[in-house]
Amino acid sequence: MLVVMQAHATEEQVRAVCQKIESLGYRAHPMPGAQRTAVCVTGNKGEVEAGTLEELPGVQELIRVSKPYKLVSRDFKEENSVISFPGTDASFGGSGLAIIAGPCAIESRDQAFAAAERVCRAGAQFFRGGAYKPRTSPYSFQGLEEEGLQIMAAVRDKFGMKIVTEAIDKESLKLVAQYADVIQIGARNMQNFSLLKCAGRARRPVLLKRGMSATLEEFLMAAEYVMSEGNYNVILCERGVRTFADHTRNTLDLSLVPAVQRLSHLPIIVDPSHGTGKRNKVTPLSRAAVAVGADGLIVEVHPEPDKALSDGMQSLYPDQFDELMAQVRQIAPVVGRTVPGIGVRTRLSQAAPAIASPATRIS
Amino acid sequence: MLVVMQAHATEEQVRAVCQKIESLGYRAHPMPGAQRTAVCVTGNKGEVEAGTLEELPGVQELIRVSKPYKLVSRDFKEENSVISFPGTDASFGGSGLAIIAGPCAIESRDQAFAAAERVCRAGAQFFRGGAYKPRTSPYSFQGLEEEGLQIMAAVRDKFGMKIVTEAIDKESLKLVAQYADVIQIGARNMQNFSLLKCAGRARRPVLLKRGMSATLEEFLMAAEYVMSEGNYNVILCERGVRTFADHTRNTLDLSLVPAVQRLSHLPIIVDPSHGTGKRNKVTPLSRAAVAVGADGLIVEVHPEPDKALSDGMQSLYPDQFDELMAQVRQIAPVVGRTVPGIGVRTRLSQAAPAIASPATRIS
Amino acid sequence: MLVVMQAHATEEQVRAVCQKIESLGYRAHPMPGAQRTAVCVTGNKGEVEAGTLEELPGVQELIRVSKPYKLVSRDFKEENSVISFPGTDASFGGSGLAIIAGPCAIESRDQAFAAAERVCRAGAQFFRGGAYKPRTSPYSFQGLEEEGLQIMAAVRDKFGMKIVTEAIDKESLKLVAQYADVIQIGARNMQNFSLLKCAGRARRPVLLKRGMSATLEEFLMAAEYVMSEGNYNVILCERGVRTFADHTRNTLDLSLVPAVQRLSHLPIIVDPSHGTGKRNKVTPLSRAAVAVGADGLIVEVHPEPDKALSDGMQSLYPDQFDELMAQVRQIAPVVGRTVPGIGVRTRLSQAAPAIASPATRIS
Amino acid sequence: MLVVMQAHATEEQVRAVCQKIESLGYRAHPMPGAQRTAVCVTGNKGEVEAGTLEELPGVQELIRVSKPYKLVSRDFKEENSVISFPGTDASFGGSGLAIIAGPCAIESRDQAFAAAERVCRAGAQFFRGGAYKPRTSPYSFQGLEEEGLQIMAAVRDKFGMKIVTEAIDKESLKLVAQYADVIQIGARNMQNFSLLKCAGRARRPVLLKRGMSATLEEFLMAAEYVMSEGNYNVILCERGVRTFADHTRNTLDLSLVPAVQRLSHLPIIVDPSHGTGKRNKVTPLSRAAVAVGADGLIVEVHPEPDKALSDGMQSLYPDQFDELMAQVRQIAPVVGRTVPGIGVRTRLSQAAPAIASPATRIS
Repeated sequence: MLVVMQAHATEEQVRAVCQKIESLGYRAHPMPGAQRTAVCVTGNKGEVEAGTLEELPGVQELIRVSKPYKLVSRDFKEENSVISFPGTDASFGGSGLAIIAGPCAIESRDQAFAAAERVCRAGAQFFRGGAYKPRTSPYSFQGLEEEGLQIMAAVRDKFGMKIVTEAIDKESLKLVAQYADVIQIGARNMQNFSLLKCAGRARRPVLLKRGMSATLEEFLMAAEYVMSEGNYNVILCERGVRTFADHTRNTLDLSLVPAVQRLSHLPIIVDPSHGTGKRNKVTPLSRAAVAVGADGLIVEVHPEPDKALSDGMQSLYPDQFDELMAQVRQIAPVVGRTVPGIGVRTRLSQAAPAIASPATRIS
Repeated sequence: MLVVMQAHATEEQVRAVCQKIESLGYRAHPMPGAQRTAVCVTGNKGEVEAGTLEELPGVQELIRVSKPYKLVSRDFKEENSVISFPGTDASFGGSGLAIIAGPCAIESRDQAFAAAERVCRAGAQFFRGGAYKPRTSPYSFQGLEEEGLQIMAAVRDKFGMKIVTEAIDKESLKLVAQYADVIQIGARNMQNFSLLKCAGRARRPVLLKRGMSATLEEFLMAAEYVMSEGNYNVILCERGVRTFADHTRNTLDLSLVPAVQRLSHLPIIVDPSHGTGKRNKVTPLSRAAVAVGADGLIVEVHPEPDKALSDGMQSLYPDQFDELMAQVRQIAPVVGRTVPGIGVRTRLSQAAPAIASPATRIS
Repeated sequence: MLVVMQAHATEEQVRAVCQKIESLGYRAHPMPGAQRTAVCVTGNKGEVEAGTLEELPGVQELIRVSKPYKLVSRDFKEENSVISFPGTDASFGGSGLAIIAGPCAIESRDQAFAAAERVCRAGAQFFRGGAYKPRTSPYSFQGLEEEGLQIMAAVRDKFGMKIVTEAIDKESLKLVAQYADVIQIGARNMQNFSLLKCAGRARRPVLLKRGMSATLEEFLMAAEYVMSEGNYNVILCERGVRTFADHTRNTLDLSLVPAVQRLSHLPIIVDPSHGTGKRNKVTPLSRAAVAVGADGLIVEVHPEPDKALSDGMQSLYPDQFDELMAQVRQIAPVVGRTVPGIGVRTRLSQAAPAIASPATRIS
Repeated sequence: MLVVMQAHATEEQVRAVCQKIESLGYRAHPMPGAQRTAVCVTGNKGEVEAGTLEELPGVQELIRVSKPYKLVSRDFKEENSVISFPGTDASFGGSGLAIIAGPCAIESRDQAFAAAERVCRAGAQFFRGGAYKPRTSPYSFQGLEEEGLQIMAAVRDKFGMKIVTEAIDKESLKLVAQYADVIQIGARNMQNFSLLKCAGRARRPVLLKRGMSATLEEFLMAAEYVMSEGNYNVILCERGVRTFADHTRNTLDLSLVPAVQRLSHLPIIVDPSHGTGKRNKVTPLSRAAVAVGADGLIVEVHPEPDKALSDGMQSLYPDQFDELMAQVRQIAPVVGRTVPGIGVRTRLSQAAPAIASPATRIS
């Protein structure tokens, strides 16, 4: 913490600030400058509790310096974390691009299999789909719940893709952890700390979406919650933030990708479907996400967007997803990434158990 | 829903749009204008699922018209809802201003009683304090949990104030509903739909804080979740939103108060403590909140802000709260409100049971 | 400036940072902390030009400390600036509330006089009206230009109100300075530095509106531009900022008022008309603005809002303005303000010259 | 315009709304729906002036439908506009990517030539550099003014690159139009309508930057101002918007690129330097901008960023720009773009006149 004094502040006021700092258990280092004095606070282990410092006479402003995150930071672990899945070449944070695709919600076995067949063939290693849907309206379709999870497990059996699906509370998280390979925590729950702690005790990697108005620091602190409970397998996901701009549903903030990569060792992927909310913007922004250096994509694909029970407006047609993958394959090498070939997933699936092995590892 | 066509759109394209609309089960009404044609969609009960409409040739844009909320709306109930507490003169939405005050977190019996004694004497009818704290950092103080609730119940016994405290998940909600008079749902959980449904099944009024980047419609839809489960006793609370402005922790959006009052019958109060995050701005913004016409205030007051385990920087000193109440008393009559007198609460407390009666009513 | 090092930074890296700082002509003060070292930079007169500091190995982040503003700051002048108008009791920043009212645009002599008659009678000391309108569309009404200024001067002659009107470029500023008592710089021109410099050389007070996405610091720096050219008579005006919220046209940020008052000696008023963009929110937010402690209000009033050539939706009817003034009169004393009585202005007008005397003064 | 009635609105209220609409000179079309009635307004040529419609009994909300822009729209011109420069292969909006590079400010002939030599060699067709600098602080370096323009003209003579530089007011615009090939209007002046009109009368293409909080519609309307004066050669530029996010100086909104391309025929380029404000994010976001489909890039490159008089923190080193261009060359073909080869510019320069020919054309 830095306490910036007013230009008019007297020496006595500076002394009083130093005394207050020391009475709070920290050390004070006054630094006289050309315009004003600043007082550095050290000796704190975490955040300084500023109490009434800002109200002392002569104080202009407090500036926080220490970062509250630890485990997510490159200070804690310098090299990139790679989250991989034994028996497959799918991973997050490695040299290969992770591609997650599938419908917004699992609506039926037929719909799921139709989507899975196409996204698998196009090269996705992960199948997404919602069994528990956090909908803005209580009157909207809320998901098939456990039946949806069972359908997803069947998709894994048949196509060999790993399964990614969202948990919305403690109960659903328990079931999701049982059926899925990756537990998704949605944007609206990014600061549901109670749920984050549960996810931190689960034995599956966690895909954590950025909250709609989360700063980078808040996003990393949410990951810290998961890690602080012992689960180090966290994948971050940029999915657009809330701004004044109204030409897309959210404003996709691709600069977050290099910003995360500078501060944290965790992998970060991008969701251009929710990030834009409009089908015709998903492919351009997917290309951009790969070009900016993201570790992967999560994309909504529906066999019949017209009939989708949710998010039909932002779901790609399977043919559009094929084209997207073709473009992604061309851009990936520029950022030193590989993209898995067509059909690979089906072969790998032979070895995949009905319920994913818990032995994911963090390298 | 309104489908706006491009100026160039051909009659055939308009026809195709109308057919698509009717194939989705709605009725289409084309409206030729000077510049372009718009097609009105009617016959929908809730939101129109737009599917692929936006992608049809000749379509420029879709504009949503129907509002997805029902129970929260003045369309459903024209007169104001008043949430009152039998045996007291405290209420939300009536002619009296509801004043909730107390520390951010319950830290100890002594701290709670010291705070309660002062805010009760100053005229607060409700005592606030956190037993479960949703903190940004997993390493910060997380609350005394049930012990905190017990301390609050003891405060009610002694001072007769009604108790307001936050629930952060299903488990804590169950306990909060047992001990407290009003269940608070925090801003970070405004779209924790699973928690909202639980709150909707509780037999206590719910104080619902606006999410940090929630639009008015999303805020009302969160209240709709609670009401749709049968709990009609919802109090809305503006507590500042996330913007680019950095002179306060959040930007307090006081215009939300008349905007809610126009659309909804639910009471709406204001939290100037979280809304600004700075002690020296709490009193001016409290005055403004009363002047704009809010149904009440929720204010953080700590006997020793310097030693607060959380939010010390935004907690008022008890003397500052006295002054705030004096100013509020002068402004309230301008907006047709009364403010309870000093010491009233203590007398009323004689009749209050140890655990609040569930028989709150909505008028 | 503070250079925060990574936790892993070696002593050598810290040394290299210090050397770089000194090579840029500043002094470096390394401060080892529990987690990491921070290096304070002093010896700079204005902002530090950070150049490539952030790229040096081991550097985590740069934090700016010095404020770039001088003349606007309470560091420069501790007591409030009061901008008064000889021969009248109208002022900005004194104990009286400054009330500016009138139509968005001057449309005709009749319209202006009808509006002026009513707002003068209700107690406004200043008459507003646009002769040069910065409209979003080139096809919208752009103002009567000099004819509009002449009408305003006639209003001053008749009613004794001081005249406030907007300049949009060098040419119009020259004319506005000739006819009006206060030169308004609109939100869209808040960072039109070329225009700010012109205003700084004019001999009239300047009413500077906050830009739609201006931080407090940027707003103060815009005022600094005016003052740096010698014109110290600057009145700041909060008029709403651009956020995601869509229930009002802009989000009125009333917390700016106490924030400005803490840092600057300049008066600050509030524009609830542009701040909300909706007639039915103007009165509640006007009350709130007075309650928060603003030095005045600027409100749009139109004799026939239905026929307004611009901003009809946010203009008050004259009767609504009467009611607003009645409410303002009740709230003002709570914040230690007086509001001028009814009819006062007309009498004072006897002495007012056709073109306002340049001899405004800053106390 | 659509007038949405309350669910409770009586038939009489609907009738009154229709009458009011017709009294304003428009036609009213009531559309009864399942929940409520909406009234379509047609017959307007531009925007409907809503006057007091929103205040009529029974009215819930007004929804604007018509777009106020004309000339910028694909409704006006379906095919892409291509702005080309006779005697060169440089263009905006064609199949080739337009690359503009150079220092933030022209500081000296040596600095400009050093920068130009490197960016030209790397493949830039346009040289950027500020002669008039709109700086936040009046005490910062404000540019070399005409001397800077002369240096830029000398750069064009020697290297054959076209010159792009900013005008900040009428006077500088006149000079810029004399010396430069493209007139830049900065973000802070995007709604300086007076300057836009001047630019509309100039005989040079205009590079218009998006304002810091401009919606897509406002941005297009600013271009409409230029075009409405007869200058159809407008190039749009996304340069980041103001949001709550603090890990970059602005939030680069790449989704604007496909959004503009859907609505307008004008070319759109991206400025990743101002869009991020941090050197280490310029290259990743440049890649992303090309991948998303932008028509070009404008990038700050300084021979010695450490000594830059402005924006040193975001300027690339020449070697970094070489690498950026190498990456851009690989990505461009994926979106059907070509990037000019190395050294081409110098040869073309033989034919370029000292002052650019006004004969730019729009195809």
